[in-house]
Amino acid sequence: MTTAEIPGPAEISGPAGTLGILDTLGSLGEQAVLARIFPRLPAAASELLGPGDDAAVVAAPDGRVVITTDMMIHGPDFRLAWSTPYDLGWKAAASNLSDIAAMGAVPTALVVALAVPADTPVLVLEQFSDGLRHGCDSLAPGCGVVGGDLSVSTVFTIAVTALGDLEGRAPVLRSGAVVGDVVAVSGVLGAAAEGLRLLFEHGTVDSVPDVASAARLRLEHAAAIAAQLAPQPPIADGPAAAIAGATAMLDLSDGLAIDARRLAAASGVALDLSSAAVGGKLQLDGGEDHSLLATFPATTILPGGFRAIGMVVAGVGVLVDGEPYIESSGWDPYRGWDGEAG
Amino acid sequence: MTTAEIPGPAEISGPAGTLGILDTLGSLGEQAVLARIFPRLPAAASELLGPGDDAAVVAAPDGRVVITTDMMIHGPDFRLAWSTPYDLGWKAAASNLSDIAAMGAVPTALVVALAVPADTPVLVLEQFSDGLRHGCDSLAPGCGVVGGDLSVSTVFTIAVTALGDLEGRAPVLRSGAVVGDVVAVSGVLGAAAEGLRLLFEHGTVDSVPDVASAARLRLEHAAAIAAQLAPQPPIADGPAAAIAGATAMLDLSDGLAIDARRLAAASGVALDLSSAAVGGKLQLDGGEDHSLLATFPATTILPGGFRAIGMVVAGVGVLVDGEPYIESSGWDPYRGWDGEAG
Repeated sequence: MTTAEIPGPAEISGPAGTLGILDTLGSLGEQAVLARIFPRLPAAASELLGPGDDAAVVAAPDGRVVITTDMMIHGPDFRLAWSTPYDLGWKAAASNLSDIAAMGAVPTALVVALAVPADTPVLVLEQFSDGLRHGCDSLAPGCGVVGGDLSVSTVFTIAVTALGDLEGRAPVLRSGAVVGDVVAVSGVLGAAAEGLRLLFEHGTVDSVPDVASAARLRLEHAAAIAAQLAPQPPIADGPAAAIAGATAMLDLSDGLAIDARRLAAASGVALDLSSAAVGGKLQLDGGEDHSLLATFPATTILPGGFRAIGMVVAGVGVLVDGEPYIESSGWDPYRGWDGEAG
Repeated sequence: MTTAEIPGPAEISGPAGTLGILDTLGSLGEQAVLARIFPRLPAAASELLGPGDDAAVVAAPDGRVVITTDMMIHGPDFRLAWSTPYDLGWKAAASNLSDIAAMGAVPTALVVALAVPADTPVLVLEQFSDGLRHGCDSLAPGCGVVGGDLSVSTVFTIAVTALGDLEGRAPVLRSGAVVGDVVAVSGVLGAAAEGLRLLFEHGTVDSVPDVASAARLRLEHAAAIAAQLAPQPPIADGPAAAIAGATAMLDLSDGLAIDARRLAAASGVALDLSSAAVGGKLQLDGGEDHSLLATFPATTILPGGFRAIGMVVAGVGVLVDGEPYIESSGWDPYRGWDGEAG
């Protein structure tokens, strides 16, 4: 958790001040930046020792701790012309919280490592922190940031690690689905992919991501854009599913069909989904839902926001209305990113 | 812990195969790369559930868990012309293990997020994994990798989060030093900085980091180069210090003088170091030692590799032989990096 690679005010020779009235990471110096960020970070109820020492200490009353890590890279994962810093903080929290919830655990703490260009305004880091805080407070109250790292890179890079508490329960794996179980989902399907499509089709000028176009899309397609840039995964439904007896569960990050195929393979079964319940190809193939896919014994009263979308059957892979389903190959427009633009 | 942003073999349109006989992350595809990496990662004795689900589960028998995170960025933190992939894996493990040890805890598990250019040979990732494994096995036996994330970025970026177990003890903070305590250090002082100086002075051609020059330096100055590129922090001495009654401790990452000043400030005391015990400016100002600085009651028989280097006295800051010490401003040659070279 050392952060000393950020130069102090006396050591600046580079791009400091190029943004005029705005303080930057480089111009203000590490200590002053951290002093402005720390009060904005969410507090963790599980925090026994917070930022400022070599490491933090977090309560793990269960005697086990759930841990996941995920990076967000400018280019492949987001564009600064589309996502506000607040969005990025929110999404970095949301996507990691969702992986914890998908184990049936309650998120307890995050550590957040951030590497940004030296000329990044401190305002950006403050808004990022606000997004982290509001994301945690809204999606997983009690979960907070207990530590982190701040570095300089030419590529805006976010690495979050999340911890969770199983509260005495067994973790819900991908491998426990049994023939006859109900397949259920909690959360939105397809909206994040629709938002991404809109951004690539209407959020660019000369193929370059554009701030003003994205702002217009936020007004005209609020739900889809928000689902892509600041998703609201149903975190509390993860533990709720575990308590209700979910036999398998995972976070929908790469699209319902791909992730259902993973659950099916891990469990040695097939999932037969109902097109009437799921919707169409957008819902089946769209990525980044961060909704929860779970299986339950057929007699279970589905908890929280879960709704039935199919059945676990004998076989391999994913069926829709009894027919084998082949998802679209998942064209990812970010892959064309040149490493510099927007 | 989703990794699906790495394109599969059928989806390649870019720089795949530019390295000829070598498979790359882009050409081989995510699943094949992970299959080659996983067997090389160190196993964690604390692992209850390893890679492959949304999150891992780690034993935390103490009811608390120590957590730290640290990023290494190509450019500010390392150069690919100087560090082998093996070195990078080793150092990423070592620097995070050291932060856990500095709390008096035993490292139990790592999660490792890696973002690399798509044309990175898989061999690089295999060697990185070997470095992680040998680093953990050598420095903190029983600690291993329980999860991670693999992404594409134009900047080679490593983000490691480490967990540790306090085994029922209180964490050793920076703030507990008391007037009359002995100041002690375990591990090498100054060698990592000497290695960095040698690399910048003799490891470049036309100011660009050079592989052949670095190879020659490895032969001629093995200890200093190894201290910089693949440090061997005395991890076991962290818990040993806690058991022996250390009153304060930290990991020496930014140089003995700067870090001693932090410990002094947190404890509200001054540290008076002996030049005869410490050495000269190289030992006082050199960064990245990843040695442990601790204070002990004067009657303590110093554990493990700790040796006395001074006393805790009333006052502020760092003294050497009773005189206030001002460290050099810590010129960091990495700061001049242009984001592209070497």
